[in-house]
Amino acid sequence: MGKQAKSAISPTREEDYPKWYQEVVKASEMAEKSPVRGCMVIKPWGYALWENIMSQMDVMFKDTGVKNAYFPLFIPLSYLEKEAEHVEGFAKECAVVTHHRLEAGEDGGLVPAGKLAEPLVVRPTSETIIGESMSRWTTSYRDLPILLNQWANVVRWEMRTRIFLRTTEFLWQEGHTAHATEAEARDRTMMMLDVYTKFVEENLAIPVIRGRKTASERFPGAVDTTCIEAMMQDRKALQAGTSHFLGQNFAKSSDIKFQNADKKEEFAWTTSWGTSTRMIGGMIMTHADDDGVIMPPRVASAHVVLLPIVRKEEERRKIMDYTQSLADALENRMYHGSKIRVEIDDRDTGGARAWEWIKKGIPLRAEIGPRDMANDSVFLGRRDMTPRDKVGLKREEFINTIDQVLDEIQDTLFNRALAFRKANTVEIDDTDGFKAYFKSPGENVIHGGFAMAHWCGSGECEAKIKEDLSVTIRCIPFDSKTEQGSCICCGNASGRRVLFSKSY
Amino acid sequence: MGKQAKSAISPTREEDYPKWYQEVVKASEMAEKSPVRGCMVIKPWGYALWENIMSQMDVMFKDTGVKNAYFPLFIPLSYLEKEAEHVEGFAKECAVVTHHRLEAGEDGGLVPAGKLAEPLVVRPTSETIIGESMSRWTTSYRDLPILLNQWANVVRWEMRTRIFLRTTEFLWQEGHTAHATEAEARDRTMMMLDVYTKFVEENLAIPVIRGRKTASERFPGAVDTTCIEAMMQDRKALQAGTSHFLGQNFAKSSDIKFQNADKKEEFAWTTSWGTSTRMIGGMIMTHADDDGVIMPPRVASAHVVLLPIVRKEEERRKIMDYTQSLADALENRMYHGSKIRVEIDDRDTGGARAWEWIKKGIPLRAEIGPRDMANDSVFLGRRDMTPRDKVGLKREEFINTIDQVLDEIQDTLFNRALAFRKANTVEIDDTDGFKAYFKSPGENVIHGGFAMAHWCGSGECEAKIKEDLSVTIRCIPFDSKTEQGSCICCGNASGRRVLFSKSY
Repeated sequence: MGKQAKSAISPTREEDYPKWYQEVVKASEMAEKSPVRGCMVIKPWGYALWENIMSQMDVMFKDTGVKNAYFPLFIPLSYLEKEAEHVEGFAKECAVVTHHRLEAGEDGGLVPAGKLAEPLVVRPTSETIIGESMSRWTTSYRDLPILLNQWANVVRWEMRTRIFLRTTEFLWQEGHTAHATEAEARDRTMMMLDVYTKFVEENLAIPVIRGRKTASERFPGAVDTTCIEAMMQDRKALQAGTSHFLGQNFAKSSDIKFQNADKKEEFAWTTSWGTSTRMIGGMIMTHADDDGVIMPPRVASAHVVLLPIVRKEEERRKIMDYTQSLADALENRMYHGSKIRVEIDDRDTGGARAWEWIKKGIPLRAEIGPRDMANDSVFLGRRDMTPRDKVGLKREEFINTIDQVLDEIQDTLFNRALAFRKANTVEIDDTDGFKAYFKSPGENVIHGGFAMAHWCGSGECEAKIKEDLSVTIRCIPFDSKTEQGSCICCGNASGRRVLFSKSY
Repeated sequence: MGKQAKSAISPTREEDYPKWYQEVVKASEMAEKSPVRGCMVIKPWGYALWENIMSQMDVMFKDTGVKNAYFPLFIPLSYLEKEAEHVEGFAKECAVVTHHRLEAGEDGGLVPAGKLAEPLVVRPTSETIIGESMSRWTTSYRDLPILLNQWANVVRWEMRTRIFLRTTEFLWQEGHTAHATEAEARDRTMMMLDVYTKFVEENLAIPVIRGRKTASERFPGAVDTTCIEAMMQDRKALQAGTSHFLGQNFAKSSDIKFQNADKKEEFAWTTSWGTSTRMIGGMIMTHADDDGVIMPPRVASAHVVLLPIVRKEEERRKIMDYTQSLADALENRMYHGSKIRVEIDDRDTGGARAWEWIKKGIPLRAEIGPRDMANDSVFLGRRDMTPRDKVGLKREEFINTIDQVLDEIQDTLFNRALAFRKANTVEIDDTDGFKAYFKSPGENVIHGGFAMAHWCGSGECEAKIKEDLSVTIRCIPFDSKTEQGSCICCGNASGRRVLFSKSY
């Protein structure tokens, strides 16, 4: 890599990764902090990406028979308390509504008034409130399965927030299903993890490791939490989606009962599964470089920006017409089931204009100057290449091959991320080597990566490693082969390697 | 009308309109009350309708240059207080978050803890929080206009709630724009009212009257509130959408300033406009009959349900195959830009099954029995006709004309509603006649309608009529012709008729 361009992101990833992330988000105009503690404003460029994510996942959900619904934002405290582990898991980070109006206080300002008999919690997740509905909707086995999803906002009062990755309010989808048998609920848990895997790998171009959480990392109230874990460019792990088998825990606490075919009453088996705007943070930290965001084409807010270059005022009209006709032609082309999304930026701000689009992460930039027009061509820059790496292309070829070019970019991003993860994943069998791997020489210095190491299965060893190294078991990968080994912490026998990493 | 079928809605509209509404909603399985005070659960059949509404309006918004974004759910109390009329308008119905965690109380139960330094209000609307962002985004006239919309949940702590029509939490879209000139902001206000008019009339098949609110009915903080008003079947008015010209009020309170082309600093001119799940209540109360909901085809959750009739078990397979192939053929047909949405209901519940779909309001029901199959035909019921009014139709004809049939139903619904409104709109010039028109002979008895009457323009007359008759000025219609007359209340001179009505 040569000298970094003046217009790029400062600091670079190597100089200060957390600060780089902040600057990348800011320069991309995707989102920003709001004056409300820990909440973000998702700006149009970021929200367009979220719209693509929503519509693409939504189709995948519906293809499995899931239907969308909507449940109340507020959860009565008594509902949350029904499942003991669940409420314990969320009690420390709940926004609590205690009053239902404002009135003039003693100093003339407004103060909360109309105290509620029972406080309401702003949903951190909706198992308990949806369980209440399911209990009313379920009489016979014929009423099952119930397969629901909602796109909604949720609130978790996190102490340390970071845009997209951990915010007080975030947007997500939460799926909730109820089944007549354990086997069916377990199948659904895996089916939705499969959907997440496919979406995150194929559309967000983020390779993931699929596995099961340990008891200490499980969703509060779940019997089994499965997850997909991705590696960010600082080699930390990010959980990109989870799918929970809830057993009969929530069915019992919410009284979701049904009469089976033999007329006996049973509790249902439930699942829940979720992904959130956090995926956007994961997308940025997987693909962005020192020039800013790189959006994978399948989810990109727009696919291509046309940049007309007007050198003489008398040429403006002609160049603008040429640009517009090119936009029209492109918008008639399809890419993975949706029309090519085209932006035209006709501001006369020279090089700064192109840099803005680079930082926004648009996959393609097409410059159109008088010479390009004369040649019936465009000058094309790809976001997966360096900014200077541009090529002249005939107009027709550009139009006819844009879907292939976008797929090439999509593949490049995935393969690059996969190679990075492979290069930074090691098997470690000695305790000292394990410690050395994760010890950072200084703050903000990138270190470590994924370590596949043996673990005896005890919560104490897991806790000790977390305490000593801030490293956790991200998951017990489904595909980790069974082999005999010794726990990296205590040396006791272990039959399987697990994935250790620092994480977001 | 003959004797009402046993399976229909009870009570009828005539017997008890409010109770009829409740029963229609319940029987439709669109939504239900939740255990959370005043909040509703929107069930899949209702949410699918809302998804269609959202996607269709969203396209219309984007066609005018609007982009979607997302702003925080919580508004600091101090932000709400910035605009005096605004906070006064919403202070009495705010959900207030005062704590950010729960901890064990003295009796062992959980109690709110972690008191916030500044209470947060759950957004009743987002002018103030979006204004804060706009103030940061606006430096020069080149940054304007800003054209934003968000699809979100909002909370207004209403004392009396009614499903879809007035709920504590509801779903809506709120548009917010900022402009460099008053004229441009006024144009935008009308442009969005035009979008609402078009959507509500053409897609929801609800005829509306367009006009301007009087000062007392204006949005808190607006300079001008324009609206569309529809007539329900109890002849009351329902406001189906509003578009506000906010002048510089919110720009001043939120400090949205810009440098104009002459380098002088000015405050921006803003607008806001919204429609909500309330429209669904309006759709039900406009079209539903004593058999249940009738969904206008363009927005219907599904267009057609196929009802295979299996008389002998050995025919099941053949009839199901025929049904599935018909579904596949229909799903390849387009209706107003989207694929025909088909449901198959293969439960063996006889007549009860068809009645469920009638109550759900699906536009078309196609029965397929052995004889229909042998004739290569279906037996078709239209929801705009009586349940017994079914016709045999060749399979090919059914497939090839389904879009026309759906359009016929759409037109029938609109024309029926328009005729009803016309039949129940009168011009009244004498005070006694005005009073008699609106006086209900008893509770729940349908009476009155729309009255076009003269009004002198004074707030006192408006207040007196409201107090005496519970009748308000729904709007000053744009198309009410100017003519000389006498105020229906005080007799003073008036230059224009206004629309009086009871309302939701």
